Amino acid sequence: MFDVLYQVKGTPKLAAMDTMNYWIERTNAELRETLKHVDILMINDFETRQLSNEHNLLRAARHIFKMGPSTLVVKRGEYGAMLVDKHGVFCVPAFPLEEPHDPTGAGDSFAGGFMGYLASVGSTNDAALRRAMVYGSVMGSFAVERFGLDRLLTLKKSEIHARARHFAKLTQFKL
Amino acid sequence: MFDVLYQVKGTPKLAAMDTMNYWIERTNAELRETLKHVDILMINDFETRQLSNEHNLLRAARHIFKMGPSTLVVKRGEYGAMLVDKHGVFCVPAFPLEEPHDPTGAGDSFAGGFMGYLASVGSTNDAALRRAMVYGSVMGSFAVERFGLDRLLTLKKSEIHARARHFAKLTQFKL
Repeated sequence: MFDVLYQVKGTPKLAAMDTMNYWIERTNAELRETLKHVDILMINDFETRQLSNEHNLLRAARHIFKMGPSTLVVKRGEYGAMLVDKHGVFCVPAFPLEEPHDPTGAGDSFAGGFMGYLASVGSTNDAALRRAMVYGSVMGSFAVERFGLDRLLTLKKSEIHARARHFAKLTQFKL
Repeated sequence: MFDVLYQVKGTPKLAAMDTMNYWIERTNAELRETLKHVDILMINDFETRQLSNEHNLLRAARHIFKMGPSTLVVKRGEYGAMLVDKHGVFCVPAFPLEEPHDPTGAGDSFAGGFMGYLASVGSTNDAALRRAMVYGSVMGSFAVERFGLDRLLTLKKSEIHARARHFAKLTQFKL
């Protein structure tokens, strides 16, 4: 990861990183050094607790912010994802599917959708980050519909936007 | 539960029921008979799977609709709650708290907030059910802030509405 960052000419506008239990356990010092240069950390709830040594995710986030990242995205599998930053917390559910076929790659598809959306709009303000969470969840939900990359290979932009609107229907309410 | 329903004069406008593993396992026949007269079933994800014999919650909901209820509210603890009915699915996260003190009664407080809201507006349309999910989650979140009923005993209406607005901030996005 650090090697990849070094290859970016100049200072990258935004660096996001995923990591996992293997690196947290085996190469913690190098991971902590790399985290100093990371803006957004995207990990699952187990990894969040492992890295921060905190069970509560809000306290875990505050702990992780001291390590470098200013934004934490916690991926929670079938329960969706949660973003924590200085603005507060934003939650998005996982898309309810009757027959998820293969969870492999859901988290990576989420990361791709999230970063791809931010890159496409060139912004990281609160509204953009919320939409990035939705598009990440959209891509994760398509990824699990078929085995491997099968569903992503046939995916159309119109389907992506339609599912994003479906996420709105899934979560929006008026007080 | 059936005894309680019988005590209602005339046909109740709306009957909601909670149940648990004990009744699902020990008095399944009576439970199934009672379910025929229930509109909204509010149970946790474990109970949903146990009652329907389906792991997938959408398939479980379709199964449960055949038993009587037309609306299923699945309580998912720290992951929030999900409503499934003929309109589709609505998800609300749990309110992120740094120090939840006592999860006892969170589900019952949720049910109280949910039904109390519906009773106060006299409607069960889609918009009302969504708001009921939010007010249920609001009450559940207050319940866990202190031990037993302590927090609910001092709770003000203004605090309830303020937290409902906080739930909006937690979940709303614009595409």
